[in-house]
Amino acid sequence: MLSIVYLVAIAAEAMAGALAAGRRRMDVFGVCVIAFVTALGGGTLRDIVLGRFPIGWTQHPAHVYLVVGAGLLTVLLARHLHRVRRLFLVLDAMGLVAFSLIGSDVALRMGYELPVVVMAGMMTGIFGGVLRDVLCNQVPVVFRQELYAVVSLAVCLLFLALRALGVPPDVNTAISFVAGLALRLLAIWRGWRLPTFSHRAAWD
Amino acid sequence: MLSIVYLVAIAAEAMAGALAAGRRRMDVFGVCVIAFVTALGGGTLRDIVLGRFPIGWTQHPAHVYLVVGAGLLTVLLARHLHRVRRLFLVLDAMGLVAFSLIGSDVALRMGYELPVVVMAGMMTGIFGGVLRDVLCNQVPVVFRQELYAVVSLAVCLLFLALRALGVPPDVNTAISFVAGLALRLLAIWRGWRLPTFSHRAAWD
Amino acid sequence: MLSIVYLVAIAAEAMAGALAAGRRRMDVFGVCVIAFVTALGGGTLRDIVLGRFPIGWTQHPAHVYLVVGAGLLTVLLARHLHRVRRLFLVLDAMGLVAFSLIGSDVALRMGYELPVVVMAGMMTGIFGGVLRDVLCNQVPVVFRQELYAVVSLAVCLLFLALRALGVPPDVNTAISFVAGLALRLLAIWRGWRLPTFSHRAAWD
Repeated sequence: MLSIVYLVAIAAEAMAGALAAGRRRMDVFGVCVIAFVTALGGGTLRDIVLGRFPIGWTQHPAHVYLVVGAGLLTVLLARHLHRVRRLFLVLDAMGLVAFSLIGSDVALRMGYELPVVVMAGMMTGIFGGVLRDVLCNQVPVVFRQELYAVVSLAVCLLFLALRALGVPPDVNTAISFVAGLALRLLAIWRGWRLPTFSHRAAWD
Repeated sequence: MLSIVYLVAIAAEAMAGALAAGRRRMDVFGVCVIAFVTALGGGTLRDIVLGRFPIGWTQHPAHVYLVVGAGLLTVLLARHLHRVRRLFLVLDAMGLVAFSLIGSDVALRMGYELPVVVMAGMMTGIFGGVLRDVLCNQVPVVFRQELYAVVSLAVCLLFLALRALGVPPDVNTAISFVAGLALRLLAIWRGWRLPTFSHRAAWD
Repeated sequence: MLSIVYLVAIAAEAMAGALAAGRRRMDVFGVCVIAFVTALGGGTLRDIVLGRFPIGWTQHPAHVYLVVGAGLLTVLLARHLHRVRRLFLVLDAMGLVAFSLIGSDVALRMGYELPVVVMAGMMTGIFGGVLRDVLCNQVPVVFRQELYAVVSLAVCLLFLALRALGVPPDVNTAISFVAGLALRLLAIWRGWRLPTFSHRAAWD
């Protein structure tokens, strides 16, 4: 199940990336790069940091085609996408949660310690968006958005807690996925945010 | 032949990087870093993504000296470089094409599938410039410039097509190099561009 | 001794990173990411470029806790930190020098050639700050600051020179550390800078 969600999620992330590229008036190539980085950049960074070679997508060229295709499709459909804005938010939330679970699982299988497992999940979940924003020359929105990264953190911790309690992997994945998705959608709906840290010292 | 072109190209890219650093009023050290990243950053990223360690330049310290030397020379000569602007454009085009061919070749030898081979060529060809622009805090120009990345893509595809047709490697490299260079120079001369995607939805 | 200095230094770098995040009004999560990247990003990049897996901090979860804790503490104490500004500058200088020595040592043990050893030291010393500034969407300050990177370079060269002269490692580390710290503090005190390269050609 998670692998179907994964394919839907990378396509949705690629489309979100393409829209961000459009805001910067990039050409069609730039759109493809930003779509790719948004969808697969988090997993790429995770694999590099964990020393897991070959990197995931290099063994699945179909993912590359899917992501580039979704980016190009976005260029054609951009004018109509505002009608499905809510669908996008749901797909993005599904991606965030699915990526986090997949990333944690990868690090667990490699035998890393729990803090690294959590960080691998969060890197997979949110760093595609961070890299997209760096390439689009803006402060990463996930550092300021409604409970975005925290959802990733919560999903990873829940997954590890249920695992420690002996819940079977499939059940665990399903529970963590639904709980994470609910938390993210609630956060958007209610506008929940983390406290912000604003600092400007006299001596800066 | 390609290795001489390669040395000329990394020196030219380093000089272009140094000029970009000058536009941001960096100090001499910043100039060296940006020169290095522009010239060798694409190959570094390619090696990391392909899991190819040790990374190329770590085994060729002479390349590091060449790149840093070219960056420092640029600081001394900057005032006179506008006289050789056209030469620069040609050297940059040669670098783009040579980097793309070298990058494809590296991935081919490692046994990666064709989409990854093309992406390795393009990463080598254009990501030095992307990293330079990220460090100089601007939207990467290759995402908006006249047929820049597309030349890299076309060179990689031509090289793979000729290879599939059984053309010997040396002949293939020569043909792909000349064709790519011609395409890039034509694109500059005629101002060819990719269609641009400009998007600002009501709901952004 | 260097390992205690190292722990103090990563905590100090994490606090400096958290303050930078506060200048961008990030939320508490963004603060933790920037703290982490500032403190451990240089070493992470070094390990990736040298092909040294698993990466250092993945084997020392305590470092992750220390860095995140220091970042969160900074949010609580931010209003009072201007009183210890000078202490911060000294801790930051200690971090720069300690990171540089540790980075060189890592590359030496892996058998890399001397230019790569120096670059590994410099990457460890200054790229945490570079990554911090990229994520905060500004031109990296180390490319423009008073003798920052040059101190890292000088420390690495001194360490290698004393090593070539047969000075025992511990004595060498102590001398290089004190000399580097003195150079950095002198540079701040006297406002020493590298020459800046400012360039804007007619044809840009």
